[in-house]
Amino acid sequence: MTGPLFDPLLGADRVAERLDAASWVAALIAVEVALTQAAAEHGIVAQADADAVQKAAAQLRIDPAELGKLAVEGGNPVIPLVRTLRAAAGPAGRAVHPGATSQDIMDTAAMLLVGWAGEVVLDDLRGAADAAARLAAEHRDTPMIARTLGQQAVPTTFGLVAAGWCAGLDRARTALAVELAHRSVQLGGAAGTLAALHPHGPAVAASLAARLGLADAAPWHTERTRLGALASALAVAASACATPATDVVLLAATEVGEVQEAAPGDSSSMPHKRNPIAAITARAAARRAPGLAAVIIGGEHEHQRAAGAWHAEWQALTDLLCAAGGAASRLRTSLSGLKVDTDRMAANLALTAGEFDPGHAGELVDRLLKERP
Amino acid sequence: MTGPLFDPLLGADRVAERLDAASWVAALIAVEVALTQAAAEHGIVAQADADAVQKAAAQLRIDPAELGKLAVEGGNPVIPLVRTLRAAAGPAGRAVHPGATSQDIMDTAAMLLVGWAGEVVLDDLRGAADAAARLAAEHRDTPMIARTLGQQAVPTTFGLVAAGWCAGLDRARTALAVELAHRSVQLGGAAGTLAALHPHGPAVAASLAARLGLADAAPWHTERTRLGALASALAVAASACATPATDVVLLAATEVGEVQEAAPGDSSSMPHKRNPIAAITARAAARRAPGLAAVIIGGEHEHQRAAGAWHAEWQALTDLLCAAGGAASRLRTSLSGLKVDTDRMAANLALTAGEFDPGHAGELVDRLLKERP
Amino acid sequence: MTGPLFDPLLGADRVAERLDAASWVAALIAVEVALTQAAAEHGIVAQADADAVQKAAAQLRIDPAELGKLAVEGGNPVIPLVRTLRAAAGPAGRAVHPGATSQDIMDTAAMLLVGWAGEVVLDDLRGAADAAARLAAEHRDTPMIARTLGQQAVPTTFGLVAAGWCAGLDRARTALAVELAHRSVQLGGAAGTLAALHPHGPAVAASLAARLGLADAAPWHTERTRLGALASALAVAASACATPATDVVLLAATEVGEVQEAAPGDSSSMPHKRNPIAAITARAAARRAPGLAAVIIGGEHEHQRAAGAWHAEWQALTDLLCAAGGAASRLRTSLSGLKVDTDRMAANLALTAGEFDPGHAGELVDRLLKERP
Amino acid sequence: MTGPLFDPLLGADRVAERLDAASWVAALIAVEVALTQAAAEHGIVAQADADAVQKAAAQLRIDPAELGKLAVEGGNPVIPLVRTLRAAAGPAGRAVHPGATSQDIMDTAAMLLVGWAGEVVLDDLRGAADAAARLAAEHRDTPMIARTLGQQAVPTTFGLVAAGWCAGLDRARTALAVELAHRSVQLGGAAGTLAALHPHGPAVAASLAARLGLADAAPWHTERTRLGALASALAVAASACATPATDVVLLAATEVGEVQEAAPGDSSSMPHKRNPIAAITARAAARRAPGLAAVIIGGEHEHQRAAGAWHAEWQALTDLLCAAGGAASRLRTSLSGLKVDTDRMAANLALTAGEFDPGHAGELVDRLLKERP
Repeated sequence: MTGPLFDPLLGADRVAERLDAASWVAALIAVEVALTQAAAEHGIVAQADADAVQKAAAQLRIDPAELGKLAVEGGNPVIPLVRTLRAAAGPAGRAVHPGATSQDIMDTAAMLLVGWAGEVVLDDLRGAADAAARLAAEHRDTPMIARTLGQQAVPTTFGLVAAGWCAGLDRARTALAVELAHRSVQLGGAAGTLAALHPHGPAVAASLAARLGLADAAPWHTERTRLGALASALAVAASACATPATDVVLLAATEVGEVQEAAPGDSSSMPHKRNPIAAITARAAARRAPGLAAVIIGGEHEHQRAAGAWHAEWQALTDLLCAAGGAASRLRTSLSGLKVDTDRMAANLALTAGEFDPGHAGELVDRLLKERP
Repeated sequence: MTGPLFDPLLGADRVAERLDAASWVAALIAVEVALTQAAAEHGIVAQADADAVQKAAAQLRIDPAELGKLAVEGGNPVIPLVRTLRAAAGPAGRAVHPGATSQDIMDTAAMLLVGWAGEVVLDDLRGAADAAARLAAEHRDTPMIARTLGQQAVPTTFGLVAAGWCAGLDRARTALAVELAHRSVQLGGAAGTLAALHPHGPAVAASLAARLGLADAAPWHTERTRLGALASALAVAASACATPATDVVLLAATEVGEVQEAAPGDSSSMPHKRNPIAAITARAAARRAPGLAAVIIGGEHEHQRAAGAWHAEWQALTDLLCAAGGAASRLRTSLSGLKVDTDRMAANLALTAGEFDPGHAGELVDRLLKERP
Repeated sequence: MTGPLFDPLLGADRVAERLDAASWVAALIAVEVALTQAAAEHGIVAQADADAVQKAAAQLRIDPAELGKLAVEGGNPVIPLVRTLRAAAGPAGRAVHPGATSQDIMDTAAMLLVGWAGEVVLDDLRGAADAAARLAAEHRDTPMIARTLGQQAVPTTFGLVAAGWCAGLDRARTALAVELAHRSVQLGGAAGTLAALHPHGPAVAASLAARLGLADAAPWHTERTRLGALASALAVAASACATPATDVVLLAATEVGEVQEAAPGDSSSMPHKRNPIAAITARAAARRAPGLAAVIIGGEHEHQRAAGAWHAEWQALTDLLCAAGGAASRLRTSLSGLKVDTDRMAANLALTAGEFDPGHAGELVDRLLKERP
Repeated sequence: MTGPLFDPLLGADRVAERLDAASWVAALIAVEVALTQAAAEHGIVAQADADAVQKAAAQLRIDPAELGKLAVEGGNPVIPLVRTLRAAAGPAGRAVHPGATSQDIMDTAAMLLVGWAGEVVLDDLRGAADAAARLAAEHRDTPMIARTLGQQAVPTTFGLVAAGWCAGLDRARTALAVELAHRSVQLGGAAGTLAALHPHGPAVAASLAARLGLADAAPWHTERTRLGALASALAVAASACATPATDVVLLAATEVGEVQEAAPGDSSSMPHKRNPIAAITARAAARRAPGLAAVIIGGEHEHQRAAGAWHAEWQALTDLLCAAGGAASRLRTSLSGLKVDTDRMAANLALTAGEFDPGHAGELVDRLLKERP
């Protein structure tokens, strides 16, 4: 709930718009409507009822805070939402939530949200990688000193440094895109046997998946490896942003001065400061990711519905998307306008290095850029 | 931003009210006003100016979302807040933010917020512990089977089990109360030397601390052990809630049936279910705590102001208070109305145990209850 | 160093054999020898020298503890190892470590170790999944009660439960196998430019990769996403083991009694106990994984060689392999001999359920087993 | 098991000596012997038997690896150890393990080990703090530029920087010392009721505590807040070391050059390098701490003995002591010989700062040093 104050600074405002309480409600409703339609498709409910439900859903105005209060009693927001939707649909309400359990709706809705927010994360990862690639191409042969263990080492080029940033961002983005593409429907009913939809269960699940743009899958109520893999991909993406951000912070240090953000933060009392705020906040955003991913990965989902590990995922997943998305967004800003001071690079290089030997730096830049996905 | 939907369910609604964006803004303003007054006390600014600032601050209407957007440029919300406050105070605006740096205001405001929210957390921890103590006293001699490694072992009493819950909650609360009592003012100025307030710096800091009910302290901009200790105490408190919650979930299992929450969650499709939702969500809330604490503990605050580790604390600390407070609140609900089925306890005990030997169980209950802080 | 005492219990003894200090030394030597040969292949060092180095390396007897002490000064064991190897090779010593930096050797050796240990992890994951698959096939139609949120819900079959275990283990194994197959060589030289091997650098790297059975890659000194992905896959694999292990612990509870391990732990004082020790220790092993993965994922590898984040990986990666491998090994033991009490399942089912409705359980078992990789 | 190779480098060799498998066995035996003597003190076993047990224990030669293998069956090393000890004591073997459960011995032994290892950690924390204090005193008035968000800000003194390091180390040490002083005996018997020792249970526990130098306590088998607090204190201590270590790495950067370690790591290929290896490895050691602490804090210890959360503590606690101890040891080395280049400080200061204004820096140094515990 500190989002309005801190999300813009930490880069999460764009992704958070697709993940707020209203978005969750919208996703839950979208799943219920699609489920009713899928059930109608297979003759489980009447098509007219399904259409009436869809119409009623489109006109529902649900206050997320009110729904949140009603969710306490049963333990999740689907229970009161179904009640509300049924009431709104009148006699057609009998077609709401056919054969499903709350977890089916929550999990499938989460997959929708992950898709909505994931698009933004991918976009910012690509934007950041593209910016890095531009820097790599432009400075393919710009000499700079490499630093290892904090000490000047031997020469490299800024192009190769930036190409390394790009490679990490691209790898992380590609891996995340794979996980996003594999987002699966969840439909199993009370015990994961699809009993209440027999003999149409698997067909309904497949229809539901198709309607929502998700992959079909057997029920995975307590088989959470796909969620663990998704959380991991987000955490790795956050980390892929943190490394270039750290480099920007270090290279922008007064004594180094090799790069500068386009719009560095100033300080009313210290006008000479050029704080690389975008990079700084990219790092900050990324720091929350591993712990949030651990909440999701570390869950032991016992029996046929976990008593706690499941409920812990909702906010953790939302926050993790904000952390990764925030890091990507802020890094994109940092790299997009990055000013490179080639004179300072040359001057710093002269401190310890003899002749500049580019080695294979240029070739490696070409290779890394050519390998871009 | 999913707070409205999930906070009530995860017990965080009461604590979140004291931690939302508006509360942060209020805390920031409270610190600025107190700082101006403390500076006036030592003749650094005019008392009339300080009073004008206080009056202007009382009338300020700040939209946290607007402030959040303005915070992006400089990297924290204090910079635009000071600008706004100065403008609002007119000529007296010169008395705003004397000798301070943004981190002074942010850190001190965080300590205020921790105090506000911490009260709620302590209250719920006490409520949960009191409920456990009542159960312990009432069931001091109620025989039940102890279970070790998931298997029935030898007899104990439910009173001793509940007394153990109480002991953990009390220890966690006491430790947290100590950390809350030690919350310290932060005032160091740009470099932590109090240069801009010379020769009144330490005196102004002491006055500021007194006005805000905080402990006086030398500047601790990058000496974050006190924050690490606070985060740890919150994580341990969350964990102290998770253990009894897990016991409730297990003892409420259909096949065990020894306890039942007062208002278990039902299921529209399965009317026989008695889901111990309060305990379940207490566990869920607690799970986020260790990872959030790790964000705070694991920060390396370099130089005189950290470029990322500091910015990562704001949301982590807020969320951690919600996680611990949520766990305590939900556990309190779970334990406060817990119904104990002594017949089932006796029947389960008879499955494997011979004669009931209470050992020192009753004495241990008395001892644990007597030792309560 | 508590390995001898705790590794067998926590299932890590087999994998640890491939990860101990001696294995690390062997891997480091293997990389140095292969590098010398690769360099000879491209005329950078004399083939005769390379062969002499290989011969000398084969005869080296290095005490890891001694090497560990010598590693302190320079900050990693490669520096003293190169010194030792050069001395051992006599005049051919000039062919040792051509164009490489310590990180090249450490990272490539780590990839070898991950391969060696990963084989064991994969084998135990497969063994556990196969055992689950056998249970699923055998009990395809064995009725049992599903439990959601700790409460009896509606019927399912044990076959479907076991098929879900199998699906998680298979998914985790497949993902891990992909990461293992992508293990890449690291060769970049001091600054990652391959300057010292010019113009043969990329060719030498490719040869080195081929000799060691690794993928070729541009230098990735501070581009650690592949390591993050590997760590994630290990953590997810550990988690995929923890969930069935938790189920076994709960289903083996005295009051439930539906499964029993083949060799449960007894208790001298409580002969009726049947502690499912293999499952218990599988859970325990898995718990360390997310935190260890976070060490690797969360590293910010600054500049061209990280001052701390890199050094923190060595033990974290080793321990993570032990955690995942230990969980898989203990779960395999647990599931391989699992005894299923179908009478208890039937009796428990009768407590709350009316007629048994298998829904699509059998079909889902068939589908999950057919989908096995 | 990578200890011999990596412990010296990561500073853990001294603390690891007190935590290895042999130390664990020694601690377990010490507890069993003290328990037998405590039981004799209260007439539960014969004094002659207790003395015979003590004598037999003193002559036992136990191979930890062998014990580790025997521990698999029952799930912990105490079971086979008791068997061995009973056999060794002949008829007096009846006096072994009176009224205790395995967890009593494991937990109490862990408290002994924590005490043994904790001494080393405290000593290194003190050594590091003393070194920082010396630097603070010596450079009380040495001007240097403060850096905030990576940028030069305004002047401070190196004394104040070092005094801040000292303050963090002292606070962390004091907090850890408190936790170490509160280490408590664990004696509860099978179910935590002390039934098997009735009516002497509490008295035996008190005697056992006194004999081992531990605090007396009611059984705390699944009330783990004291362990959580201990783990937290270790993690905070590690963090208190990481912050000065990070500063050393940054201040030693070639372009800054304000400090240098006494024995920096060199590089065969780059003779100009002065890698601050002690600081680098202090950071690396510290990074494992938060995740290991989370394993301990995050355990949900269900019922009267946890099925997994307990077993996960043994290696996590050991590794955490190594991480904190390693960080402290390496930081002590780094700070003890730190060379300060006041000329470079002056030159860097001149880059952006006008006149040097020490503000209250000197007073703050005096205050921080005077406040030292």
